Amino acid sequence: MDCGSLALKGGWVATQNADREILKADVLIENGRITQIGEVGSADEVIDVSGCAVIPGLINAHTHVSMTLMRGIADDVNLEKFLEKTFKVDAMRTPDDIRLGAELGSLEMLRSGCTSFVDMYYGQNEIAKAVTDIGIRGFLGWVVLDEQFTTQKGSPLANCENFIDSHKGLERIHPLVALQGVYVCSEDTLLKAKDLAYRKDTLLHIHLSETRKEVYGHQASTGKRPADWLHDIGFLCDKLLAAHCAWLTMDEMRKMAETGVSAAHCPVSNMKLASGFEAPIPEMQALGIPVGLGTDGCSSQNRLDMWGEMKTCALLHKAQRLDASVMSAQRVFDMATIEGARALGMDRELGSIETGKMADLAVIDMKHPAMVPTFQNNLISNLVYSCQSDCVLHTVVNGRIVMKNRNIVTLDEGNIITRAQNMSEKFFL
Amino acid sequence: MDCGSLALKGGWVATQNADREILKADVLIENGRITQIGEVGSADEVIDVSGCAVIPGLINAHTHVSMTLMRGIADDVNLEKFLEKTFKVDAMRTPDDIRLGAELGSLEMLRSGCTSFVDMYYGQNEIAKAVTDIGIRGFLGWVVLDEQFTTQKGSPLANCENFIDSHKGLERIHPLVALQGVYVCSEDTLLKAKDLAYRKDTLLHIHLSETRKEVYGHQASTGKRPADWLHDIGFLCDKLLAAHCAWLTMDEMRKMAETGVSAAHCPVSNMKLASGFEAPIPEMQALGIPVGLGTDGCSSQNRLDMWGEMKTCALLHKAQRLDASVMSAQRVFDMATIEGARALGMDRELGSIETGKMADLAVIDMKHPAMVPTFQNNLISNLVYSCQSDCVLHTVVNGRIVMKNRNIVTLDEGNIITRAQNMSEKFFL
Repeated sequence: MDCGSLALKGGWVATQNADREILKADVLIENGRITQIGEVGSADEVIDVSGCAVIPGLINAHTHVSMTLMRGIADDVNLEKFLEKTFKVDAMRTPDDIRLGAELGSLEMLRSGCTSFVDMYYGQNEIAKAVTDIGIRGFLGWVVLDEQFTTQKGSPLANCENFIDSHKGLERIHPLVALQGVYVCSEDTLLKAKDLAYRKDTLLHIHLSETRKEVYGHQASTGKRPADWLHDIGFLCDKLLAAHCAWLTMDEMRKMAETGVSAAHCPVSNMKLASGFEAPIPEMQALGIPVGLGTDGCSSQNRLDMWGEMKTCALLHKAQRLDASVMSAQRVFDMATIEGARALGMDRELGSIETGKMADLAVIDMKHPAMVPTFQNNLISNLVYSCQSDCVLHTVVNGRIVMKNRNIVTLDEGNIITRAQNMSEKFFL
Repeated sequence: MDCGSLALKGGWVATQNADREILKADVLIENGRITQIGEVGSADEVIDVSGCAVIPGLINAHTHVSMTLMRGIADDVNLEKFLEKTFKVDAMRTPDDIRLGAELGSLEMLRSGCTSFVDMYYGQNEIAKAVTDIGIRGFLGWVVLDEQFTTQKGSPLANCENFIDSHKGLERIHPLVALQGVYVCSEDTLLKAKDLAYRKDTLLHIHLSETRKEVYGHQASTGKRPADWLHDIGFLCDKLLAAHCAWLTMDEMRKMAETGVSAAHCPVSNMKLASGFEAPIPEMQALGIPVGLGTDGCSSQNRLDMWGEMKTCALLHKAQRLDASVMSAQRVFDMATIEGARALGMDRELGSIETGKMADLAVIDMKHPAMVPTFQNNLISNLVYSCQSDCVLHTVVNGRIVMKNRNIVTLDEGNIITRAQNMSEKFFL
């Protein structure tokens, strides 16, 4: 990390600090950190952001970025048929197309002002190359499952450990231990994975109670619902980020809260696969469980778009409960920023614009036709209910401008697009 | 209408014809009409659209365009509080800001490839000026309600008739008769409005069964549910386009089908206001009722965005029924195009790309990162589940290019934005 100081001048700063202040202030960035919020003097680079909002970079708390090459491959089918198709395609993948899929997905995310993503897949060494080159921040989980269920060469757990050892400490790469889910992970695998996360001090990530089938299947074979069972075998812990969490009882949620588990809510994927009905997010939040938002993979979302995820999150919960106040714009914006950071155990480093934090942020054009009018009292509303990628002007990750005036400055976007179109053809034949 | 011939060459044409063909073909436009689909020779203007999809212009079947100036004014509250706030603001409006709101909303729609909208508001003479100048197509309904409930000067019915008389036959202006709803319209008002629509041969538009309160309130005072009652007083007819239709019985839907009523489904507004639960769209479609999609006004949506409306429509119905196949991408795309045209009684003129039809269409960049990869078998999926305004390159209305390479060519966008920001301040104080 070696770039000069950067000043963003004259914007509205949606700090997402403890008081959720919206400040008319400049932001100074030095050595990858936010060093000043207020009236800033000179800097190596100054960008006029008047008429814009400066926001914390959005955090995508659950995805499979490399599956972006499989956009639209299995729509309008339920999860079982979806998985049948995607697993078939998974088996055809090469290191090159895994890396390329990660580049394509990262392009989308950076264009939308999303600066961090939590990923679950194999071939994370390839995804790490894409993350390094394109300039996004990756929380990369090499997926672990019982050996009998995997097409990975070698032991998934050993692969995961190797990946962590070779990538821990690299810039913008946060390796972690990921698990597919209770349906392909034995107690032994789960506890070894947890042990690995503790030995390496990483996050632990799992798909949890995404579908009724998962819940009732597990109950049929073990006598317990997945989260109850995970609690009883001693797997739940404060390193765990559980994705989906759509089918949970209040008892399960209490156990998650007591053990410090976090959640990644994926409303669009749950709705599109008709798998998740309504994850009990308000109840989790009332128990103090940190809940982030995730797009899930592009073959189920089908756009790695945190704006759509935020708006859909608000709409889903309002509609389901016939209560328009149940999921406010501010609460949803929190989930995509500071609460997402908390879910990753990174709220001291990410998720808000405060002095000392990592400089991951985005600049939103509030003079875009879809954002007019904007005043202080509807700014967060406009971000959550109106903003889309077309309103995002600049994206900064770790103090470095990765997108400037809607142009990705790190990699050749046209080249990625041409190769992605060509390389994905085999999946669609 | 006086512009030369236009050829769009080398794109994928998502025709939305009876066979839903996707053709690799050029499109020729002359005198506001589509005159050739195939290999086209020369034209006054030729645009290379290789790598793009050419689609019928999207049809927004229900909105209040001028309320775009009130974006984000009353979020996260139920319909009663929402109406309280918006009616208060309505009373402050001037002809100038009604026109300006229509310009701002039309900007958003044209930027998204939406070429037609059905509007319900007063001051339609001002909205018609905006429509004329910016180049969109407006189905403009002057709203009628009992005189005791309105702030309009003069009789709403007479105002509506005057508007129709002075605007019928103007280019891209389709005046119609609109009614607020059974809660402010007596039997006498409703039947006079219907009579007016027949005398002038226009569409008839109404809010119908949007909320439980409307349904049960009407039942308490008349003994009948709204659609049953409207049927019994002889109001239902094939000129009627009913917006929302969220709370209907099968019996009511059968009566609507028998009398030729159409519907405008507004999933985002229904979800955001927590008013509509799940409109029974699959049942209406099974009965043959034409169903279009509408954004509703910008103070409830909060973006006049037909792409978000399409995706949310698919997600809502899949999620509610736990069935991922219930609302397919193709069906939703139909609702925004040819079925929307059918709902307006305009399917012989609009809604598909076929020789002889009005030339309302949009060009979508399928090489945008969010649309890659695109093949023939995921093209409609990418349009419905991935496309947003940032993928729309050109918009053509009535044979005229209104947006070219993402630039609105008819009005000064910056000027509209500056004035809209300033003029809306009074609503937010």
